[in-house]
Amino acid sequence: MTDSPAAPLVADLSEDGLLARIFPHLPRGPRTLVGPGDDAAVVTAPDGRVVVTTDVLVEDRHFRRDWSTGDDVGHRAAVQNLADVAAMGAVPTSLVVALVVPGDLPADWVEGLARGFGAACGPHGVDVVGGDLSGGPVVVVAVTAHGDLEGRPPVLRSGARPGDVVAHAGVCGTSAAGYAALAAGRPEVDPGAVGDFRRPTSPLAAGPDAAVAGATAMLDVSDGLLRDAERLGRASGVVVDLDDPEVALAADLDRVRPTAAALGADPVAWVLGGGEDHGLLATFPPDVALPAPFRRVGVVRAPEAQGSGVLVQGSVPTVRPGWDHFAG
Amino acid sequence: MTDSPAAPLVADLSEDGLLARIFPHLPRGPRTLVGPGDDAAVVTAPDGRVVVTTDVLVEDRHFRRDWSTGDDVGHRAAVQNLADVAAMGAVPTSLVVALVVPGDLPADWVEGLARGFGAACGPHGVDVVGGDLSGGPVVVVAVTAHGDLEGRPPVLRSGARPGDVVAHAGVCGTSAAGYAALAAGRPEVDPGAVGDFRRPTSPLAAGPDAAVAGATAMLDVSDGLLRDAERLGRASGVVVDLDDPEVALAADLDRVRPTAAALGADPVAWVLGGGEDHGLLATFPPDVALPAPFRRVGVVRAPEAQGSGVLVQGSVPTVRPGWDHFAG
Repeated sequence: MTDSPAAPLVADLSEDGLLARIFPHLPRGPRTLVGPGDDAAVVTAPDGRVVVTTDVLVEDRHFRRDWSTGDDVGHRAAVQNLADVAAMGAVPTSLVVALVVPGDLPADWVEGLARGFGAACGPHGVDVVGGDLSGGPVVVVAVTAHGDLEGRPPVLRSGARPGDVVAHAGVCGTSAAGYAALAAGRPEVDPGAVGDFRRPTSPLAAGPDAAVAGATAMLDVSDGLLRDAERLGRASGVVVDLDDPEVALAADLDRVRPTAAALGADPVAWVLGGGEDHGLLATFPPDVALPAPFRRVGVVRAPEAQGSGVLVQGSVPTVRPGWDHFAG
Repeated sequence: MTDSPAAPLVADLSEDGLLARIFPHLPRGPRTLVGPGDDAAVVTAPDGRVVVTTDVLVEDRHFRRDWSTGDDVGHRAAVQNLADVAAMGAVPTSLVVALVVPGDLPADWVEGLARGFGAACGPHGVDVVGGDLSGGPVVVVAVTAHGDLEGRPPVLRSGARPGDVVAHAGVCGTSAAGYAALAAGRPEVDPGAVGDFRRPTSPLAAGPDAAVAGATAMLDVSDGLLRDAERLGRASGVVVDLDDPEVALAADLDRVRPTAAALGADPVAWVLGGGEDHGLLATFPPDVALPAPFRRVGVVRAPEAQGSGVLVQGSVPTVRPGWDHFAG
């Protein structure tokens, strides 16, 4: 099988022609009162408030087209935004997509992107209600996602209190393992991790479940457990003291240890420092039964002489924290 | 006055350092329940629905940095999104901004962008509630704006009926005149129009006012009166028949005629075909008193043999329609 020589590029289609390939893949349900095609969409906001978050992916900075298909990028762009909504304790309801595409991009890639959004959103009842399309030198995917708090207060980063249990839902380090395998040119070492890197899964339902259970603080782990635990600690004015990762994160370490061995990497660095797994990190009062799939990974302590932030077993962590896309 | 040799570039600052220059300029009012800094914002949606629209501006396609300052681009990005909200008959309430910036962009430009958003949003009580920041090869500004329908049905593009009066609020052709003056390297011919091109003004209050008055259809005129009238006609399955522009749009023509004469251009082409003025085009039942500042510009007719769309004084228009950024 080879590409058809007639496979059209974006520049070969009109804007309407490209939109005609996108629209069929976008989920639309009862939350969408007015969908794409007018000046704006109208969506339900049942409790009189709406949760709003925006995230942008830039080609060659957040993804590479030789590593990820359009489907992959659409999936990832959706998940990372929906995870931010879930991290407020909200149920994701809808999103809009602003898309910049070079003229020499295959139209199939754009259709794949739409398919990826549909695949990531549809099963969660999240509607893609609108968007905008422009030309430009590289692919840029800017997503704004919305959610419904169902009458509850939002769960902020700033509510953790000394004595709270620190818990995590999702996986740690798998995306970093997949990235490392791709970077080493050896994706065959761990196709599963490569797949998780390309299409991360976030435990979206765990966000509202944590809120119902009484979570005091929560965030999406997008830049690595250490860095995001530090953010939660600083926002709350406390210390997040993580348990021994060999115990608390044993399953995550076991998952990536063979890949780390094959690539000569440190599995603890992946599990504590690797980003883009999009699990949820939350704190709960000590008497709360953790809702599944949260598992204890640490405890909240009062701020110490060196201030708020993160420790591992009471000590300053030695592992390199997650990356900063902006500084790249 | 010369630029300070020490004026920092984006690459000279950390993400937090750049955000510290942005945040002070962003308006925040009582509609913002949770503002920037957490995983997501929370804003009020008083009537249980929220209007959502997204638009993206790309450097060298939608703006040029040698023609427009950061302040100008922020202002324009805000206004074109707020106009889309108003065109649904809604009151704009909040927006989020996803921003891509090259490392060699002056940090002052980014601060100006934030200032432009503040200047465009603040007077309308619109809050900038969140955002995302990334590096990339060119400046990309993706805005998602939200609005409140105040209990009314949205005013769609598709509701125009034969016999309705077609009315416009705002100006036509001034932005095209400013663009033409800049393109000719002669901004001094019409500094006012150049200013309107750089920082368009939309009659935002006219959107909800039109809805209250009973407008049957409405849209934001972003791509020129002819093209957007045609969109409204096609969406409604009717013909929008515009009146003689020498009469109905006399003030708009008078405004740009000297500039057109100086540049050897056709003022009617600017007024009927020029984009980015961000007025509102609406249709009203014939017995409705038009709310200010709407003025009659045509009438809705039943579809004819050639289908729905736009006519001028009953004839197919000869003026070139507005541009298509995507095809550029």
